[in-house]
Amino acid sequence: MKVAIAGATGEIGRSIVDGLMNSSADFEITALVRPSSIDKPEVKKIKSQGVSTVSIDLLGPREELVKALSDQDVVICAVGFYLTQEQYLLAEAAKDAGVKRFVPNTFGPSCPPAGVMLIREMKEEIINHIKKMYLPYTVIDVGLWYQITLPRLPSGKIDNALAFPSSQVSGDGHSPSSLTDLRDVGKYVARIIADDRTLNKYVFAHNEEWTQEQVYSQLEKVSGEKVPRNVVSQKEVEAAIAAGQAAYESDKSMQGLTGLVYPQYLNCEWVRGDNLPGRAKYLGYLDTKELYPDFEHVRFEDYVHEVVQGRAVPVYADRSMPTVPAADKSA
Amino acid sequence: MKVAIAGATGEIGRSIVDGLMNSSADFEITALVRPSSIDKPEVKKIKSQGVSTVSIDLLGPREELVKALSDQDVVICAVGFYLTQEQYLLAEAAKDAGVKRFVPNTFGPSCPPAGVMLIREMKEEIINHIKKMYLPYTVIDVGLWYQITLPRLPSGKIDNALAFPSSQVSGDGHSPSSLTDLRDVGKYVARIIADDRTLNKYVFAHNEEWTQEQVYSQLEKVSGEKVPRNVVSQKEVEAAIAAGQAAYESDKSMQGLTGLVYPQYLNCEWVRGDNLPGRAKYLGYLDTKELYPDFEHVRFEDYVHEVVQGRAVPVYADRSMPTVPAADKSA
Repeated sequence: MKVAIAGATGEIGRSIVDGLMNSSADFEITALVRPSSIDKPEVKKIKSQGVSTVSIDLLGPREELVKALSDQDVVICAVGFYLTQEQYLLAEAAKDAGVKRFVPNTFGPSCPPAGVMLIREMKEEIINHIKKMYLPYTVIDVGLWYQITLPRLPSGKIDNALAFPSSQVSGDGHSPSSLTDLRDVGKYVARIIADDRTLNKYVFAHNEEWTQEQVYSQLEKVSGEKVPRNVVSQKEVEAAIAAGQAAYESDKSMQGLTGLVYPQYLNCEWVRGDNLPGRAKYLGYLDTKELYPDFEHVRFEDYVHEVVQGRAVPVYADRSMPTVPAADKSA
Repeated sequence: MKVAIAGATGEIGRSIVDGLMNSSADFEITALVRPSSIDKPEVKKIKSQGVSTVSIDLLGPREELVKALSDQDVVICAVGFYLTQEQYLLAEAAKDAGVKRFVPNTFGPSCPPAGVMLIREMKEEIINHIKKMYLPYTVIDVGLWYQITLPRLPSGKIDNALAFPSSQVSGDGHSPSSLTDLRDVGKYVARIIADDRTLNKYVFAHNEEWTQEQVYSQLEKVSGEKVPRNVVSQKEVEAAIAAGQAAYESDKSMQGLTGLVYPQYLNCEWVRGDNLPGRAKYLGYLDTKELYPDFEHVRFEDYVHEVVQGRAVPVYADRSMPTVPAADKSA
């Protein structure tokens, strides 16, 4: 199966490359790389893993992009959510190229299509465009990554593993949310894109359900340190969303967006309880626990041990992307 | 099973009342009727069929509406699509009342959620609001009604049956579309709302696939008259949509909307080919042919005979509602 990936060197992209490469199925991977990035070390690294690369500008001539996708079975879009034009053009080219399955960039929490998170609404607009074209697709959401779930320890001992530590306990701290190890995302994707049952469906890939109180307690147990709770009530989360919305209304840039994105994530994941298997099922998702009962995921407890023992790899370590967790610092 | 219906005296509402009343299952029906309409003959008529009525204003006090819905299993919204505020309030009250299933007003063609028909987008906004609340729901679409599919005969012989005759052959006339007899809609609804498999799903209820050329030929065969084709090309349909969009931009009223709605329906149903079982399946719908293989629908050929023999009942006979087919006359 031939798979093309845009955004192969990002956090999700790297997990997908690893997941496909280490799969028992036979995937032939092509990374679509911006001409300006083709010589970057991270591109060389995936080449050394056996990934083919094609230098192409998603905003460039349509026919070149269609040609690059013309013999691909699956196209996976893992570019930043804020690159909306690129995502529309990639989907349109995939349609023209007759691609058999397109995976848009979602890879986030289960969330209703409108009224909860602006990022979700932006993603849904692209999904709607895909549907208007009848481009075969699979939407894959993965809950909250383990890697952005833990708070700092007072000693600073795990700071190196937490490029973006969780800084708040939202609501009452007792609302569960589905967590997934970022390293499992690619393994789920390898199963999902080779599965006829998931064509033109939404799939919720998730490892374990934890409350923030349980997450903090687990970290305390493993580290032996007391972790202070920076509790932010539901009302405060909602006030932060209202303030973020007002700010975004007056500055509709990425900068203006970041102050809205973070409290909306907290609201979805820890207050409203959207990011849970039952909620995902209501929203029309298939469930990886039912699709792949044999799937062995990384246990959250093991991840916490890794972090405390200094073996965990941080995400967004370069902090160069205007991604969601960046808003964490301003919250 | 207790079922409340808003809009029970409209075209869809009456079909649903008949369908539930004539079902082998035991439905207890309550019509939610505007205080100003409670003494109208059409309300008296459904009362005589055994329907209970409650006089209530959907825009009135929330607690009264919640109380009216509090012992209902299913709430069906069949009010005009343009009554958006009423639909939001009815859904919210159904959530507060703990209703087990809400059926929003769709009952139209299979159509992608955005970019094809403004009416669909308006309906999707209400569906999205339902999803944000996790109100249990079933979306039921039914294709194009037999009753608004036929053109006039030159003799005028069937005018009395066609309150809104089809006036155009769109595109090349050879694109099929799913047709359903309006009288079957209620029979499908009776099956669907008593079926656990359809909870929190979209269902496409459809009788038969016909092209416009086949529809015209069938009418010619049964009537013995030659029916002229008023052919409107795909380009002309698209130009009418563009003009309708411009007009709607400058007049966002129901009046401004009507000129856009009609060509968008033609585009969806006869040009783009959205309104077909395969397309509906792609869009996530369950299919009544698979759910209810024993369902006996009214055959389109039989309907044409009824019309030609003067036995058919016209829809929208009072023409008082600002509904979609009204735009037919201005097209």
